[in-house]
Amino acid sequence: MPLSPLLAMPGVATPEAATRGYVFNHTMIRVKDLARSLDFYTRVLGFTPVHRQDFDEAAFTIVYLVLAPDRAAIPEDDGERLRWVLGQPGVLELTHNHGTEQDADFHYHHGNAEPRGFGHLCVSVPDVGQACERFEALGVPFQKRLADGRMKHIAFILDPDGYWIEILQPAPFVG
Amino acid sequence: MPLSPLLAMPGVATPEAATRGYVFNHTMIRVKDLARSLDFYTRVLGFTPVHRQDFDEAAFTIVYLVLAPDRAAIPEDDGERLRWVLGQPGVLELTHNHGTEQDADFHYHHGNAEPRGFGHLCVSVPDVGQACERFEALGVPFQKRLADGRMKHIAFILDPDGYWIEILQPAPFVG
Repeated sequence: MPLSPLLAMPGVATPEAATRGYVFNHTMIRVKDLARSLDFYTRVLGFTPVHRQDFDEAAFTIVYLVLAPDRAAIPEDDGERLRWVLGQPGVLELTHNHGTEQDADFHYHHGNAEPRGFGHLCVSVPDVGQACERFEALGVPFQKRLADGRMKHIAFILDPDGYWIEILQPAPFVG
Repeated sequence: MPLSPLLAMPGVATPEAATRGYVFNHTMIRVKDLARSLDFYTRVLGFTPVHRQDFDEAAFTIVYLVLAPDRAAIPEDDGERLRWVLGQPGVLELTHNHGTEQDADFHYHHGNAEPRGFGHLCVSVPDVGQACERFEALGVPFQKRLADGRMKHIAFILDPDGYWIEILQPAPFVG
């Protein structure tokens, strides 16, 4: 659909000047086992952790991760780095409530069964076929392989908590 | 925390070369009333819709939105624009299952009550005090005002489905 009818959809307003500088900075998900999730997001998907904060009294830890195209762009200085990461789009925040990893029965809700809400994260990749072959080789579980269902150009893998991660390749596909 | 201990946390791996070009592209949430959500995300937060796809048989619609610093950067050509948006970080995908807006009892689950999982989206702003005054003036509901609780530098507003949106200002704060 061309841009002009999109801008004329019911509800759509022209951004006010007051929103200048607003950045869709991050998405937060809770994870049961921080080390397992850090392994997945860094090793499988290529994220880099850039900030960690421990809230000892409330017994939780947060970690911000970025999929930085250029790792050299990450400031070394703590304060500078925090200011930098909070001004970036595409940051992932993992929240770990201490101790959940020790409870065999504990699990978070991925949002795609009742009660539904949040759906998925999406990582776009230069070559979706190659990426999916790599995920298979790494033993990553799939919710939907490229060959499954009607949409042959997208796949869904599962993170350690069962959150769905869409994998696709930027292209003018028709779904 | 400096960068080096972050990179030495249990589970953290150095990104493989195969992940080069991976982009944390979008986060998908389901919304009950598309027009109401489009109003909120465009008028209140400054997003611009850049792609819409209707799945008539499965009775749902998706809309991709960006908080584009420069609207002129959005390609006019459909195919080019879709390729562009799928290569960007910080995209928001709204999914609307047709008809939910007509059911007074229907609501999605925001993830911050049981069963928990997804936590929030975050929009960073140049001036968090000014932004919160603007949200108050617009009648946006708050989950947490700046003055509430211990963390005086962050607020949480609620979108039309009750999803939490953190509002903060990039700064080297200590939470």
